[in-house]
Amino acid sequence: MTPPAERGLVLAFPECREQAAAVARAAGLGCAQITLHRFPDGESLVTLPEPVAPRVFIYRSLDQPNEKLLELLMAAATARDLGAARVGLVAPYLCYMRQDKAFHPGEAVSQRIVGELLAGSFDEVVTVDPHLHRVATLEQAVPVTTAVTVAASDAMARFLEQRLAAPILIGPDQESEQWVAAIARRNALQYGVARKQRLGDSEVRVTLPEVDYAGRNVVLVDDIASTGNTVAATCRALAAHRPASIRVMVTHALFAAGALERMLAAGADEVVSCDSIRHPSNRISLADSLARALRDLR
Amino acid sequence: MTPPAERGLVLAFPECREQAAAVARAAGLGCAQITLHRFPDGESLVTLPEPVAPRVFIYRSLDQPNEKLLELLMAAATARDLGAARVGLVAPYLCYMRQDKAFHPGEAVSQRIVGELLAGSFDEVVTVDPHLHRVATLEQAVPVTTAVTVAASDAMARFLEQRLAAPILIGPDQESEQWVAAIARRNALQYGVARKQRLGDSEVRVTLPEVDYAGRNVVLVDDIASTGNTVAATCRALAAHRPASIRVMVTHALFAAGALERMLAAGADEVVSCDSIRHPSNRISLADSLARALRDLR
Repeated sequence: MTPPAERGLVLAFPECREQAAAVARAAGLGCAQITLHRFPDGESLVTLPEPVAPRVFIYRSLDQPNEKLLELLMAAATARDLGAARVGLVAPYLCYMRQDKAFHPGEAVSQRIVGELLAGSFDEVVTVDPHLHRVATLEQAVPVTTAVTVAASDAMARFLEQRLAAPILIGPDQESEQWVAAIARRNALQYGVARKQRLGDSEVRVTLPEVDYAGRNVVLVDDIASTGNTVAATCRALAAHRPASIRVMVTHALFAAGALERMLAAGADEVVSCDSIRHPSNRISLADSLARALRDLR
Repeated sequence: MTPPAERGLVLAFPECREQAAAVARAAGLGCAQITLHRFPDGESLVTLPEPVAPRVFIYRSLDQPNEKLLELLMAAATARDLGAARVGLVAPYLCYMRQDKAFHPGEAVSQRIVGELLAGSFDEVVTVDPHLHRVATLEQAVPVTTAVTVAASDAMARFLEQRLAAPILIGPDQESEQWVAAIARRNALQYGVARKQRLGDSEVRVTLPEVDYAGRNVVLVDDIASTGNTVAATCRALAAHRPASIRVMVTHALFAAGALERMLAAGADEVVSCDSIRHPSNRISLADSLARALRDLR
């Protein structure tokens, strides 16, 4: 049997080592750690473990992305210097997907610029539910040979199945319907999607779908929560209907300071997230889903 | 007469706007400001002032470089999106020049990687005295069509000329000889270079050249001071010889926390720097020298 590292080696940035090791194990791949040193002048020194395999996957989630991106490009170039023939990126959270056009004159179209930087360094990219609006596919945003989108819905559905009987799933806005519907489908759950109106920078009005919420377990599902304002407004609207419980389940815990507190204060009994971005709310492992994607890539 | 902006437009990142404006004015070019917005999730939004000229120079000094580099690449790509045909970089301090080889197995050769990233985005690069060791020219480090090295020695010599009669210039180590000699040459000043031995991570032993320092004004010259340890050790060695004064003059004030205090505590009467990196010690403007380089580029 081929030893794991020869089939492919996962190279993990330090802050991702546990998740990367779990994915590598589940995928039957080797795993080793990248080391990072920061000099007093703010420069980074990236060191790869030697030897690298002919095929490597560099693992780093790209929340708070600017410094991480630069170090990532350095790691990819170094992997090639050290002999890797095929260099992939596993970024459970992919940054800069929301700035997909110039909303005002002169603005950088960051999605395309970052996508092209990544495509210049990586042969393949694997991510979880990227937040795409105006582009239809991940390949358009990150023009690599192979761009793979892993759905978090499988892991989320499994998590729910073990914890709640017959919940109602609610998405806070139209955009969330895709994620909510995918989870609901797996266990034939009831679901609905609210309508959201922005009233200002941080204020939103949420109109719930007409469902009898009284005494039911409600699970609010979204791909990203950042300020938590939308989720909080939805929780407040739901609380008025006296459900048995309100749970919040998000894929990417991109929580700004105060977001978790805001959602709990608005009536959420629990906030859970997938482990694409490390956060104390992480309860749902994406390791099996990511490992499946890596195995399918062969 | 052609209006300044049509001959070329300097686009300044916010933290460099005063320096960029002075350079543009001296070079007879237009100047406008790039705006930066930071989202709570750590992503940057770069916005260029419209319209951009066919030829632009993006101005940003690259100390504490990681985030700045990413935003710089975004600005360059956006300038091209908005119609710039020729995009130059003016980076008075250029980062990652010291990691010019893998000192240990597996290390990223950051100089080459960053150089190639810049070369992928810019047609020309202008910088001040880059800290090159194992590569002979700036073009080798940053493989752009036109790479221009501006010497700080002119501005430094002019500064000294107005302040001190017949100082002795001392370089703290062999590497500094090029800078010291260039300044000394302009006003036929006496100069010498010390020998440095590293005794540990932060300890150095400095052997001064044999000169009669008693009662003389001594100026210590170096291109970069980071921790200030080498300069401080040289100051201590000099102080034993009872000179009239000890001044420290550095090109790039890359001072880590405590560096300035360390040099003053070691006996420096004054520490001055060029304005390639903003710092309270900035006393020497590089605007005329940079402007001359931009004019010569035509």
